[in-house]
Amino acid sequence: MRMYDIIEKKKRGAELSEAEIRFFVRGAADGTIPEYQTTALLMAIYFKDMTDAETYILTREMTASGDTADLSALGDMTADKHSTGGVGDTATLIAVPIAAALGVKAAKLSGRGLGFTGGTIDKLESIPGFNTALTAAEFTAQVRRIGIAVSGQTGNIAPADKKLYALRDVTATVDSVPLIASSIMSKKLASGCKNIVLDVKYGSGAFMKTFDAAKALAEKMIAIGKSAGRNTAAVVSEMDTPLGDAVGNSLEVREAIRVFNGGGSRTLREMSVVTAALMYALAAGKDFEECRPLAEAALNDGRAFEKLREMIAAQSGDVSYIDRPEKFPTAKTVIEYKAEKSGYIFSTDCEKIGTAAMLLGAGRAAAGDKPDMSAGIVFNKKLGDTVEKGDVIARLYTGRNYDEALSMLDSAVKISGEKPNYKFSYVII
Amino acid sequence: MRMYDIIEKKKRGAELSEAEIRFFVRGAADGTIPEYQTTALLMAIYFKDMTDAETYILTREMTASGDTADLSALGDMTADKHSTGGVGDTATLIAVPIAAALGVKAAKLSGRGLGFTGGTIDKLESIPGFNTALTAAEFTAQVRRIGIAVSGQTGNIAPADKKLYALRDVTATVDSVPLIASSIMSKKLASGCKNIVLDVKYGSGAFMKTFDAAKALAEKMIAIGKSAGRNTAAVVSEMDTPLGDAVGNSLEVREAIRVFNGGGSRTLREMSVVTAALMYALAAGKDFEECRPLAEAALNDGRAFEKLREMIAAQSGDVSYIDRPEKFPTAKTVIEYKAEKSGYIFSTDCEKIGTAAMLLGAGRAAAGDKPDMSAGIVFNKKLGDTVEKGDVIARLYTGRNYDEALSMLDSAVKISGEKPNYKFSYVII
Repeated sequence: MRMYDIIEKKKRGAELSEAEIRFFVRGAADGTIPEYQTTALLMAIYFKDMTDAETYILTREMTASGDTADLSALGDMTADKHSTGGVGDTATLIAVPIAAALGVKAAKLSGRGLGFTGGTIDKLESIPGFNTALTAAEFTAQVRRIGIAVSGQTGNIAPADKKLYALRDVTATVDSVPLIASSIMSKKLASGCKNIVLDVKYGSGAFMKTFDAAKALAEKMIAIGKSAGRNTAAVVSEMDTPLGDAVGNSLEVREAIRVFNGGGSRTLREMSVVTAALMYALAAGKDFEECRPLAEAALNDGRAFEKLREMIAAQSGDVSYIDRPEKFPTAKTVIEYKAEKSGYIFSTDCEKIGTAAMLLGAGRAAAGDKPDMSAGIVFNKKLGDTVEKGDVIARLYTGRNYDEALSMLDSAVKISGEKPNYKFSYVII
Repeated sequence: MRMYDIIEKKKRGAELSEAEIRFFVRGAADGTIPEYQTTALLMAIYFKDMTDAETYILTREMTASGDTADLSALGDMTADKHSTGGVGDTATLIAVPIAAALGVKAAKLSGRGLGFTGGTIDKLESIPGFNTALTAAEFTAQVRRIGIAVSGQTGNIAPADKKLYALRDVTATVDSVPLIASSIMSKKLASGCKNIVLDVKYGSGAFMKTFDAAKALAEKMIAIGKSAGRNTAAVVSEMDTPLGDAVGNSLEVREAIRVFNGGGSRTLREMSVVTAALMYALAAGKDFEECRPLAEAALNDGRAFEKLREMIAAQSGDVSYIDRPEKFPTAKTVIEYKAEKSGYIFSTDCEKIGTAAMLLGAGRAAAGDKPDMSAGIVFNKKLGDTVEKGDVIARLYTGRNYDEALSMLDSAVKISGEKPNYKFSYVII
């Protein structure tokens, strides 16, 4: 078999065989296929797409390239969730404890963020002592014992995906539905959960810009999950404005605690409940609509918060920070961003808001950067709200770059006399 | 400037700027752009094409990456020709001397073939002593003195093209019109002639399979030549059957001598006259139809043959081989390929005929192979001819692989009771 022929075949738009995809993935991972051939095939895939069958085989081979967890001893209620990434999206910190409170074996492996803010792992590390590097055995034992664990990936998970992703990242081939779907799902399949809930975002703050694009990606991932024998469902949700009020690591943890205490952003609360209900529905084989009020109850009556405390304690975190969030260190400087005129917040460019948070130090511009845990933005007024001239729209928490971040916010937030036609929305598929 | 942005821009189908193309060519040539980014861009160009303006800039930058000849001291009648490559095509050996006999400063730099047979340089090396490695100064001096030189490229011609071609060759991105056109023209511009005649082949024995594809390539190359201030014209000619009767290095030289002596294949003769007339028409600023009978006369009355002899003598070749071609060594074995039934030669798969010649030893399967000068095939009957059962269709000259070559010929040549609708054709554009 020759890589040349595989490139030529895909370039013509033909479907690659199982043997051809296996040859490609193994060769790309072990270096026997040169990178210049790999990237030519990736670009041909960008233009000619892959069928569901091809995408599943690609995913399966990337999963098989590394370590895989076997959680079957934990039964059929193991569940994982994955978000394609948004701004001010800390739903994982809320949804996973809710699901665990309902009896789901919530076993979430998370990555670190490369972007506007840190990932879930970074956010959890803002809690002193919290251990995000459980071994596979520790992780499984904790899920078995208390029904919940959130940890970074240890071991060698889908190294073929790592290799391909690194090449896609420098050759403008990230935005291909089969390549995104296989990359995400190769890691989800490796983590071993029987049930997988995907949160696929669209809008100005998301990678996919339109609902249709996000839906296509969600469907591709669901097809992969089902081919692999996993119960898989997705929430396709809008990301034209930050999901929560806070954008930044410990700022988002503090907002999550407000949600557990009955406050926080309504949309963050809603997405957390929906995600948890869907995890439970898949794991228990129940109807989503039946599960939703159960998830709300578990959040409202404190059972979910108790699960979060249990997890933090089990992973050596200082639970007093959760109980008294004012203990989190605050940024050196707090700057108020005020309305220049009265009207409605008519539109927000969510990507620019994320970039402003990154400028303040909340995110990583490059792998290896260390996010500033206390940096970020907390919104007081959101898309669709009315403001009077001089009202505080947001507070910036930082030790640096606040001039740049303020002017970025200025170009992101538009105030108008006209009321915007905006309502947060999501679709379950 | 970042290569990533250039790939992304071309992927979206936008036109690259002069600065972007220059950045790409220089970076690809000097290694500052990694090969995995170069091949991703090449594949994006395959799918999204390049405008005439982009293709010209790409060509010019590849030319500028290496040595260029300045032939302006030789006046405005310098002319070069290039064929995109066919089977049994030795028109260069005839056309260049005809053009020189008409007063054209015929300065042809040739490559070695990688394919069915050797290139013009290999064919000329079958003449003992012939020097195909003139220095740039020797080459120019010879053209000035006797009006004709054919030499291999010495010096560092378009190294950026060499680099890109090597990558295209292993990533299935050879068959892109702007990439083919810029590759050929970068070398033609470097050779410095004011007038350029292109012979673009189409059909079963050519790289381009259809007339329309060949015409598009010819038009792209003409546009490049004109942008560079060169008089450029093309013959788009059919290659469904070998152009001459002979396919193989010294076998083709011997057929060329037969053409000078009034014999040889009619189609080889016709293409040689047309090519020479076009070189003369461009160089002298005359009408092609006016030049054609002049080219025929120079071939028929021996002036062209005299130019060939002058050139061979000037380049230290043994002229007695041209005067008495029976001196060329013949192959160890000559095998007759006979008609199995009576009828018309209804079709020939010209690529398979070329492959049969290569199997016999006439060509190179890999760079660095040494072609067998005496190996090849000479046809006695061609496409459209009538044959009786047992007639000799062709003779195979070889020391090896004749079983394989015979079965390849068997699958290439179809005899039928029906007369094929075939007439050799070409179009000048």
